[in-house]
Amino acid sequence: MIILNSIQDMQKYILQEKTEGNSVGFVPTMGYLHEGHLSLMERAKNEADIVVVSIFVNPLQFGPNEDFDRYPRDFERDKKLAEEAGADVLFYPDTKEMYPDKPVVTVSVNRRTDALCGKSRTGHFDGVATVLTKLFHIVSPDKAFFGLKDAQQVAVVRGLVDDFNFPVEIIGCETKRESDGLAMSSRNVYLSEEERKEAHHLYQSLQKAQSWLSNCDSGETEEKMIKYLEEHTAGTVEYCKVLSYPELLPPVKDDKKLIIALSVRFSKARLIDNVIIDNILEKQGSEEEKCSVI
Amino acid sequence: MIILNSIQDMQKYILQEKTEGNSVGFVPTMGYLHEGHLSLMERAKNEADIVVVSIFVNPLQFGPNEDFDRYPRDFERDKKLAEEAGADVLFYPDTKEMYPDKPVVTVSVNRRTDALCGKSRTGHFDGVATVLTKLFHIVSPDKAFFGLKDAQQVAVVRGLVDDFNFPVEIIGCETKRESDGLAMSSRNVYLSEEERKEAHHLYQSLQKAQSWLSNCDSGETEEKMIKYLEEHTAGTVEYCKVLSYPELLPPVKDDKKLIIALSVRFSKARLIDNVIIDNILEKQGSEEEKCSVI
Repeated sequence: MIILNSIQDMQKYILQEKTEGNSVGFVPTMGYLHEGHLSLMERAKNEADIVVVSIFVNPLQFGPNEDFDRYPRDFERDKKLAEEAGADVLFYPDTKEMYPDKPVVTVSVNRRTDALCGKSRTGHFDGVATVLTKLFHIVSPDKAFFGLKDAQQVAVVRGLVDDFNFPVEIIGCETKRESDGLAMSSRNVYLSEEERKEAHHLYQSLQKAQSWLSNCDSGETEEKMIKYLEEHTAGTVEYCKVLSYPELLPPVKDDKKLIIALSVRFSKARLIDNVIIDNILEKQGSEEEKCSVI
Repeated sequence: MIILNSIQDMQKYILQEKTEGNSVGFVPTMGYLHEGHLSLMERAKNEADIVVVSIFVNPLQFGPNEDFDRYPRDFERDKKLAEEAGADVLFYPDTKEMYPDKPVVTVSVNRRTDALCGKSRTGHFDGVATVLTKLFHIVSPDKAFFGLKDAQQVAVVRGLVDDFNFPVEIIGCETKRESDGLAMSSRNVYLSEEERKEAHHLYQSLQKAQSWLSNCDSGETEEKMIKYLEEHTAGTVEYCKVLSYPELLPPVKDDKKLIIALSVRFSKARLIDNVIIDNILEKQGSEEEKCSVI
């Protein structure tokens, strides 16, 4: 595995690979790799000739009160894991390389952000879209792989690629989970022992919500989820939402896909999780069969 | 010359050319071509294997009170001119093709816009940067050619390409002028006969400003330009400015390049012009030799 730190070297390398007719699969990450990331790399390995992994903790996507400084980092471990997972190139630029000056231009995300994490993380998705625009130009991937745990991010990235006509295919990959169902995340290391034990209830609530949705409307389902999480964890529920996907608007019968999504804040970590399902709202029964009172 | 209307066809065509090892020169335009555009195409022809010209009057870069609807259009004439100038492909999408929906993402230009035309044309350069981001992904040019008459646009495009790491080289080409010095522009057709006669004074004022600058500071030079234009034309002076280039900030001795730029509003056309020069401020004489009082 080659490690490249400079944008110019990365672009030169890719140009050479492209000239030789090799396709490029790309897994952009902020490092502190876990099995979720590794599964993206394995998928990329199957679908492209060359796998490029980037590790860059992007300051632009962290708010002033967020955890940029204490975001977990372990480059030596990441390097080993990425190599084992089959990465051919590790792109590892520093902040100065990516943002030598205050940027003249940035990407603004105008939709799909006024819900879920976007609601409280002002500017977060602008930062994500900006760094991905840069990375896509540096790596020129044929396919880029993203975990659906960050489903809102995938919705924004699809908007970015569609609207800007990037010649890149976006592959959203299923969330990797621990054996008890907890979605893998770099931030899970910040859970206390007690919190870690409770954390499987996040996924449980998503499972339950799917069955609640066959009788309840989206608002009632959200209320039941909040109640369930408050009863089963010590975390603070930030949101439980049923929305259309990828538009992230209040669902209507015509929507093809729905997302059920949640965010729970524990003492030192804010965890998110979701499931994306076919829209079952149109299959709901009549008024009489409605959701039982909570 | 091939004419393509769909993004998909354009991307497919370019992919084929790239696979065959051909380099792509790109001249993005809003049509109503004049010799300025044609000189860009000729330059592109010299520097790339394939020349792609786009014609798209981009609604995103027009303000609500601007001339989008009455922007001059003549596709049949443009087609003939582009072909004669050596274009290999004319990309001519309609608005629905470029903006099928309200965009999820747009580019925001955060610097280089709070001066000159950007000051009065809110959102104009966001629209320019957004459409160019799309076009660069559709055409994948190795080099893109822009006229320096729109020097602020070139400054913004350089910022766009640098910040977003587009693998594109931006070539700023000298302004083409009529025999009396008037900068060529699609909007010149809107000048009355009388206005057309006066209009050469715009370039005259830029020439004079260069000599004024060797004795006067930038503010005094700007005042002299305004006075000159008010005396020699019936137009309304929107701005006369001496700024650093490409940052477009008040000039200091360390700046390498300066721009002297003006905008004058005539009855039915707003014309702009500029010259970009080496910074001569540091070579200015002592206080005693200062600018004579106007």
